[in-house]
Amino acid sequence: MANLNGPTSDMRTEFLKVYSVLKSELLSDPAFEWNENSRQWVEEMLDYNVPGGKLNRGLSVIDSYKLLKEGKELTEEEIFLASALGWCIEWLQAYFLVLDDIMDDSHTRRGQPCWFRVPKVGLIAANDGIILRNHIPRILKKHFRDKPYYVDLLDMFNEVEFQTASGQMIDLITTIEGEKDLSKYSLSLHRRIVQYKTAYYSFYIPVACALLMANENLDNHVDVKNILIDMGIYFQVQDDYLDCFGEPERIGKIGTDIEDFKCSWLVVKALELCNEEQKKILFEHYGKKDPADVAKIKALYNELNLQGVFEEYEGKSYEKLTSSIEAHPSKAVHAVLKSFLGKIYKRQK
Amino acid sequence: MANLNGPTSDMRTEFLKVYSVLKSELLSDPAFEWNENSRQWVEEMLDYNVPGGKLNRGLSVIDSYKLLKEGKELTEEEIFLASALGWCIEWLQAYFLVLDDIMDDSHTRRGQPCWFRVPKVGLIAANDGIILRNHIPRILKKHFRDKPYYVDLLDMFNEVEFQTASGQMIDLITTIEGEKDLSKYSLSLHRRIVQYKTAYYSFYIPVACALLMANENLDNHVDVKNILIDMGIYFQVQDDYLDCFGEPERIGKIGTDIEDFKCSWLVVKALELCNEEQKKILFEHYGKKDPADVAKIKALYNELNLQGVFEEYEGKSYEKLTSSIEAHPSKAVHAVLKSFLGKIYKRQK
Repeated sequence: MANLNGPTSDMRTEFLKVYSVLKSELLSDPAFEWNENSRQWVEEMLDYNVPGGKLNRGLSVIDSYKLLKEGKELTEEEIFLASALGWCIEWLQAYFLVLDDIMDDSHTRRGQPCWFRVPKVGLIAANDGIILRNHIPRILKKHFRDKPYYVDLLDMFNEVEFQTASGQMIDLITTIEGEKDLSKYSLSLHRRIVQYKTAYYSFYIPVACALLMANENLDNHVDVKNILIDMGIYFQVQDDYLDCFGEPERIGKIGTDIEDFKCSWLVVKALELCNEEQKKILFEHYGKKDPADVAKIKALYNELNLQGVFEEYEGKSYEKLTSSIEAHPSKAVHAVLKSFLGKIYKRQK
Repeated sequence: MANLNGPTSDMRTEFLKVYSVLKSELLSDPAFEWNENSRQWVEEMLDYNVPGGKLNRGLSVIDSYKLLKEGKELTEEEIFLASALGWCIEWLQAYFLVLDDIMDDSHTRRGQPCWFRVPKVGLIAANDGIILRNHIPRILKKHFRDKPYYVDLLDMFNEVEFQTASGQMIDLITTIEGEKDLSKYSLSLHRRIVQYKTAYYSFYIPVACALLMANENLDNHVDVKNILIDMGIYFQVQDDYLDCFGEPERIGKIGTDIEDFKCSWLVVKALELCNEEQKKILFEHYGKKDPADVAKIKALYNELNLQGVFEEYEGKSYEKLTSSIEAHPSKAVHAVLKSFLGKIYKRQK
């Protein structure tokens, strides 16, 4: 799962202050009898896994809430609460990443070894993932228990977590199927995986948090949800593209989608565009660790001009998203959605 | 984590019918776009992991609710709802077990290979654990969203899950500490682990579910909670005892607490009662896989008469629990707590 572009360093500093507050509250949570060892473990685990990303999902909550308030100055309490919700999303992300890295047997994350690779940690990381997940309702209860939208907040976080885990499931079982028969990979399958695995928690939930804080009923914003999901799908297609064609120094990792037999947008497009001979190459060399196999796939992607196909897709997606946004009646909502789209359009990392 | 004694087969059959209803609801949950593969995967995963235990935690919700209603006939809806809450606890248990087995590198569970040991599953089991966990709020939302106690139900499940994960954490990090210095193990540490890791989700939550269904405010029942936690600690001491002195055919597994360097009640008692010479034996042979080391520890346990020490503990615990229960003003609550105690006193499995 990938990151959006970086925010300004000022906002980041302010946002990180709220992290420190939340962390120290969690480390003295009265529901548990702490001692030196357990406090130290959780603190180290949080610092290692929660604040090290680009924080765009979290910061978007504050951004979006500001835009929904149409320029009205936010109170300190509002900024704190929007930040706390933003951090809940970062905690959610940390939880998924810690567990994903175990499942994918990954090595590095955000430029450091994956948490489970830290020698003293090992598979305790699985329980740490659970702890991260459990911090979210602790934060929500402490700061939102008396808000009229508390129960909606709980329901929404629960639903989005369920959707993300379900997306992760189809990604995992699809790869088993795909290894048997590559032709199972299709655009509709790709869309389904990406929608559930990435779009809800990366795009929908930050805006939904802001809407709830603004006392909006989420049932009245199904159109906003649909636009954000489409944006999330576009974002993940970019991610698939960058995995193969991005610069490793800029994206912060070396892509391995081809080796890992991933149902990537690129292989789906290749399957769609190839002739019988090219299809044979795909079937023979996709999903193999050997660099010679990977090189054959990359050569085929170039032969099929997937870079050009992607650029066309990118242009059309932008147009479609823009016109969906403009069809929406609310100016404030326009601003929120355009700000999101602006952050990801033609991103190189 | 262990099981209580078995219920009657009639109740079990009725209870299992509710499982089938909940399962088919989950397999068509509108929050996710299902297909044949994903439905099949989740169904198999549920059947493999959820209903195969003794179901005592789940059945206790119905039992307890009946007793709270003091003999009044329950409506079909009440039985269904109490059963659904019971199943939420069984789902919670399944989630912990699937992940614990990965962390402990276990081999069998409930007489079959652990889920992650099933060849096609592997580490996908970690995500399946997450799916199990996510089913709980789905069940609660579907059947309890309109109940006045819905938000309390969510808060309670969240709090108990947090406590259980925290207990698991101290168990895991304590074992690292203990491996360096066995003398870190103490009765108060043992109590803390057991309280958080087992007592809340095995003893407190079934009764708390019944109390919420009976429209009770949980804040008024802190004394009930404390008694149930003490009962949970007593239950886990039995478990530690049976791990070494129980019959493998009756307890359904071969205990490995000694090999695994566990902070078991037995080693804590041994540390308390041993002389300097015996202490050397403990330090030298505890936590080793070699059967010769294990035999030396067991011989020491016999030398220290830990069976007798346990019997005395068991008698005293029973007395203390009985008098705490009798000090409680409500007859209905007496009945609930006594029924629980009766189920575990002097259990052999």
